[in-house]
Amino acid sequence: MTASESLPAVLDRIDRDLDASVERLFALLRIQSVSTDPAYAPQCLTAAEHVAADLRGLGFEASVRPTKGHPVVIGKSANGANGRAPRVLFYGHYDVQPVDPLDLWKTPPFEPRIETLDGGRKIIVARGACDDKGQAMTFIEACRAFKTVTGKLPLDITMMIEGEEECGSKNLFGFVRDNSAELKRDLALICDTGMWDAQTPSITTSLRGLVYEEVRLTCADRDLHSGLFGGAARNPIHVLADIISALHKPDGSVAIPGFYEGVHELPPDIKADLARLNLTPEKFLGPIGLKIPAGEKDRMLIEQISTRPTAEVNGILGGYTGEGAKTVIAGKAMAKISFRLVGAQDPEKIRAAFRDFVRARVPDDCAVEFGNFTGAPAFGVAFDNPALAKAREALAEEWGRKAVAIGAGGSIPIVADFKTVLGMDTLMVGFALDDDRVHSPNEKFDLKCFHKGTRSWARILAALAA
Amino acid sequence: MTASESLPAVLDRIDRDLDASVERLFALLRIQSVSTDPAYAPQCLTAAEHVAADLRGLGFEASVRPTKGHPVVIGKSANGANGRAPRVLFYGHYDVQPVDPLDLWKTPPFEPRIETLDGGRKIIVARGACDDKGQAMTFIEACRAFKTVTGKLPLDITMMIEGEEECGSKNLFGFVRDNSAELKRDLALICDTGMWDAQTPSITTSLRGLVYEEVRLTCADRDLHSGLFGGAARNPIHVLADIISALHKPDGSVAIPGFYEGVHELPPDIKADLARLNLTPEKFLGPIGLKIPAGEKDRMLIEQISTRPTAEVNGILGGYTGEGAKTVIAGKAMAKISFRLVGAQDPEKIRAAFRDFVRARVPDDCAVEFGNFTGAPAFGVAFDNPALAKAREALAEEWGRKAVAIGAGGSIPIVADFKTVLGMDTLMVGFALDDDRVHSPNEKFDLKCFHKGTRSWARILAALAA
Repeated sequence: MTASESLPAVLDRIDRDLDASVERLFALLRIQSVSTDPAYAPQCLTAAEHVAADLRGLGFEASVRPTKGHPVVIGKSANGANGRAPRVLFYGHYDVQPVDPLDLWKTPPFEPRIETLDGGRKIIVARGACDDKGQAMTFIEACRAFKTVTGKLPLDITMMIEGEEECGSKNLFGFVRDNSAELKRDLALICDTGMWDAQTPSITTSLRGLVYEEVRLTCADRDLHSGLFGGAARNPIHVLADIISALHKPDGSVAIPGFYEGVHELPPDIKADLARLNLTPEKFLGPIGLKIPAGEKDRMLIEQISTRPTAEVNGILGGYTGEGAKTVIAGKAMAKISFRLVGAQDPEKIRAAFRDFVRARVPDDCAVEFGNFTGAPAFGVAFDNPALAKAREALAEEWGRKAVAIGAGGSIPIVADFKTVLGMDTLMVGFALDDDRVHSPNEKFDLKCFHKGTRSWARILAALAA
Repeated sequence: MTASESLPAVLDRIDRDLDASVERLFALLRIQSVSTDPAYAPQCLTAAEHVAADLRGLGFEASVRPTKGHPVVIGKSANGANGRAPRVLFYGHYDVQPVDPLDLWKTPPFEPRIETLDGGRKIIVARGACDDKGQAMTFIEACRAFKTVTGKLPLDITMMIEGEEECGSKNLFGFVRDNSAELKRDLALICDTGMWDAQTPSITTSLRGLVYEEVRLTCADRDLHSGLFGGAARNPIHVLADIISALHKPDGSVAIPGFYEGVHELPPDIKADLARLNLTPEKFLGPIGLKIPAGEKDRMLIEQISTRPTAEVNGILGGYTGEGAKTVIAGKAMAKISFRLVGAQDPEKIRAAFRDFVRARVPDDCAVEFGNFTGAPAFGVAFDNPALAKAREALAEEWGRKAVAIGAGGSIPIVADFKTVLGMDTLMVGFALDDDRVHSPNEKFDLKCFHKGTRSWARILAALAA
């Protein structure tokens, strides 16, 4: 019997087992695995051991692997490669954000409960209910249903559940490099992202890369009196402003020569899907007090924030910035400027082109120095990756609505490492909603998202196994 | 016998009395009249009484007038109006800068001495040797010589010697308003400026005015993550940079509409005099590490710094400016921007035009607030003021070289008050040299400048009396 043939029984099992699934999630949520605070190290270890024990019950060969920080749980399924089906690496994290300010929680953060909202909507409330214990458990519960119904997992699955995501995953990068042989699979799966809205399932198919530069400009060798020198002495703030102003063309595009090299157009169907989401300025910018999209004029807002590259000044400082007036012409000024990258844009080429762009605008008697903070390429799943089509189809079947492939504006560094170190694509499928209060008091996860998330993973696993 | 007829005898008297003149200056220099430090208030009063007593000896009716700070010495000559000759107000100050760092002084700052440099050049070394005790005494010694030779002063002269110039003259503005009747004369004279160089006498005929604004820009109502919002959210640093970049045209002129209203061309002869001074970038900008004049391309450097208006950003701040990288799009950004004004530029018109210029460049969904710190018009002597021509001629006779009429880039607030409150022009004639170390350790005044400065004033007084 194939995984697809078993699927109806697996989904039925998930439905009937929901209360027990929630109880298992609650058991994990009660463990105070706050990773940023060293005082909680024992609880982090407890959470790791709890997850490892749970995985063993599903037939995984599971171990708690030490790092310089909190341990990583690794689980390997007994079944080997299964024909054409990809071997997958599932990544999640057992650690959670700190809970302060504690007095804003309506009930204690580590005492999970179900709350029924007006209209009958049920939510799971606890720290980690969504991020990422609740989301990770949707995958584990899907595995459990397969194991219960069919006696085995539908695919070759490696689990990697880390404990330092909320404090920068700083030991994970080395761990992945050191254990690349056992972690390198055909495809990575992550359940730590959100849905477009409560009705629309989503797969995050791209993450923007980042180049971050600091520009330090020196004109005169000291600060000058603007009465004595004003008019003749070069003002570094003017030079910086000219550079920053020149970074964008009137149409909102970035003016650095070669900047768009490696930026590809979206496939028409993906773009049409995005258009249908109809992300309006009112909806996206209204909550932050803005109305007018500031990016490339010929692009939809949703493209501007996800699938198009940007140039932003993140900080600027020069001259006198205290109270009142000081008639100074500064000797130095500084700006921090970063670029979000997409597609195949090369971070080091962008950095070099930016520096050339700046140098060409610095007067001959002034000096510029650069500081280099980050250079990470964008990540993107190939739109023709068959796993993507299968996962979209599986999600559509569960939710009764087409799953959108969206780009995330920020970066998730480990995903880039999966690509560059382990050579595999990642499908990011998540069930978080915008109102989940992730990282805030009264974090919640909709019971429906937990339930249908579990069913979604069962469908995706069956589809990938086919 | 007219003042002009007496002049040869007066000049001769000055020459023969030089040693005694220097001794009188030394007596004043020994008084530690540091105005910024309240501990020296008794010495400031001593200096005021010393000056008043000296003026009484020359026939002035002198008094030490209290203020909320250090007193002002007022002296009124007995002789009334003298035909067409202007009644003059001479302004100087008896207070001096603090002396620290004391260990950099080669000899104690309040023990004046004559030092002979290599080549025989003699200098007077002490705190206040130049600024302003030495310079003020050139005028008083000229008066003394007239009194000795002719028995009277050549003009109706009112003396105003204040004691708070080095701490902002903060009580002088009210004093001038409160005593405008007795201080309002036909012409003010000041001896507190410099010579173009050791051979070239100078009259400072203009001071630039100042408008100082703070621009506070708000885009989003909070700081944003550049990954999530980058590309769609307006960045206030970009908006500010565009505004600052637009302030100047490619030719270096200021682009605000109407900015040059009230800016007049120099008379050709004055401009030719300035050209002959041949102020090169090497000479002016070299010492501060620059080479290329940054102002209006079609103007001489000396015009850029003195007789032309400017726009300068004095400070800018926005976003993250600490160590390292933070991927933020700031909600707010701020810049301090000031304008040096010349001629008849109207500070309030400039301020309004600037604000319009900014508002026109602020997107509709962003907000701008302005802070107003200063609005002072430029000061300029009318080039056809007969006193100016007489003073230039007198200086030329003493120094054997044409006296240049130069503009000072900064402002001297009391001069603006003389114009606006008392309705009179000011001739600023001074004998300081660039190497006088004013405000620094080992302040000096060339004995030649003191001597020929005194002779210069005698000639100017005779010329004005004619």
